[in-house]
Amino acid sequence: MESALELYEEKHTILKIGGSVITDKNGELAAKTEAIDRLAEEIQKANTQRLVIVHGGGSFGHPVAQKYGIKEGLRDDAQKIGFAETHHVMTVLNGLVMDSLVWHSIPAVSVTPSSCIITENGRIKTFDDAALKRLLSMDFVPVLYGDAVLDEKLGFTVLSGDQLAAYLALKLNATRVVIGVDTDGLYDADPKTVENAKLYSRLTLSELEKVKSNLAGSNAVDVTGGMLGKINELIPVIARGIPVTIVNAAKPNRTYEALIGDSVEGTLIEKE
Amino acid sequence: MESALELYEEKHTILKIGGSVITDKNGELAAKTEAIDRLAEEIQKANTQRLVIVHGGGSFGHPVAQKYGIKEGLRDDAQKIGFAETHHVMTVLNGLVMDSLVWHSIPAVSVTPSSCIITENGRIKTFDDAALKRLLSMDFVPVLYGDAVLDEKLGFTVLSGDQLAAYLALKLNATRVVIGVDTDGLYDADPKTVENAKLYSRLTLSELEKVKSNLAGSNAVDVTGGMLGKINELIPVIARGIPVTIVNAAKPNRTYEALIGDSVEGTLIEKE
Repeated sequence: MESALELYEEKHTILKIGGSVITDKNGELAAKTEAIDRLAEEIQKANTQRLVIVHGGGSFGHPVAQKYGIKEGLRDDAQKIGFAETHHVMTVLNGLVMDSLVWHSIPAVSVTPSSCIITENGRIKTFDDAALKRLLSMDFVPVLYGDAVLDEKLGFTVLSGDQLAAYLALKLNATRVVIGVDTDGLYDADPKTVENAKLYSRLTLSELEKVKSNLAGSNAVDVTGGMLGKINELIPVIARGIPVTIVNAAKPNRTYEALIGDSVEGTLIEKE
Repeated sequence: MESALELYEEKHTILKIGGSVITDKNGELAAKTEAIDRLAEEIQKANTQRLVIVHGGGSFGHPVAQKYGIKEGLRDDAQKIGFAETHHVMTVLNGLVMDSLVWHSIPAVSVTPSSCIITENGRIKTFDDAALKRLLSMDFVPVLYGDAVLDEKLGFTVLSGDQLAAYLALKLNATRVVIGVDTDGLYDADPKTVENAKLYSRLTLSELEKVKSNLAGSNAVDVTGGMLGKINELIPVIARGIPVTIVNAAKPNRTYEALIGDSVEGTLIEKE
């Protein structure tokens, strides 16, 4: 067993897979199993060392969390079954992802956020990462996800996969972060409504700050903030000097190419 | 939020449900969904406060763990996918249990052992119980299970639901422990082969120690030790003065009666 210090000198990659990629956000509990299997295949082919995967909730976590107002915290006891349900449906989605990863011979082990993370006003306060660190040191691929978690101030809340991915990037001092979404990257306008929307292939942190307000992307209902929410989580990561690549994980091979470090259609965001 | 001290003054009940009750141990990945639903109904009806549920692995965890020698620890890299698979199938069984509990309006939240427990030579060494304690203080019903876990000496191993139930009983200073198995309790001989085997309705700790070697019960393949393994885990619990009731959870209402504290067919074991 290597020491914690050695571990943090390793080159970690964080791969975030958006809920909109692996579920149909317009449905309810609607998994895109073909997309999950294709991504498992790309991850297996890329064979990235020291990989941590984080996935979102899509049409599993979000509708239930929204129905019961889980993100806003505990206000009455009737919400408790909603908290239980939100966590449960997220474990079901995670189970589908794990099934595909393990079936592709990836030594993937789920780490349940609500079992080891407690937030304070929605931000990660304590994270017992002993199992996570040990899994990484043994060359397992830990898989985490957006989850309903307990909160010191709110009672409970929703922890987004985006916050988790950014937190892990900083905590593990990752070499890079790959964010898989269902658009080709960051545009200067919403490509779904503006015909000549231009894709940014590369942005510096200061450029990103300037264009932030125009950002378009995931527009479906998302209790955890959509593309702007993602960017706000990622800014401290980029400021640390960790490059972030946003790719379309709904299109074949983009995630694979990003993982092996090839140039890939998407948006690369670097500190300078 | 009450303090940790107040929490431990609460009256906790630990309910362990054997893998042989909720799965067909002769099959592979064979859940007994009717038994799971019936138990969820009994648990809902009993409405036990400060309840912690622990379930075993049955035909989910055991065959995979055995195939890869997970309990014995990491000896070669080919076992890693076996560790991933063992944990995954246990989350699948847990998902079926959670589904039924939540569907019965029980505010049950799974706590994943491998995410917050690390063992040393197969015994629980560290357990980050922050989420578990907070769940209990908020009147959720935490649900844990036998799992493939990381081990400081062995790399990884199998943590039995029996060890976990006994550990939690001691840690939470439980008022009582209910052990649901697929026989009526403890017999002086194997009731499946000896015609006049006699059921013990009550045993003291010293009587238990004397009859331990004749114990019969769960005979199917169980990587975690069957009935004798259960008893060895429970002895420190009984020695602490926490009464243990062993009931046939495969028979309707036994678990319900044990939970509400009624006299029930089974074996009650007390310190004196």
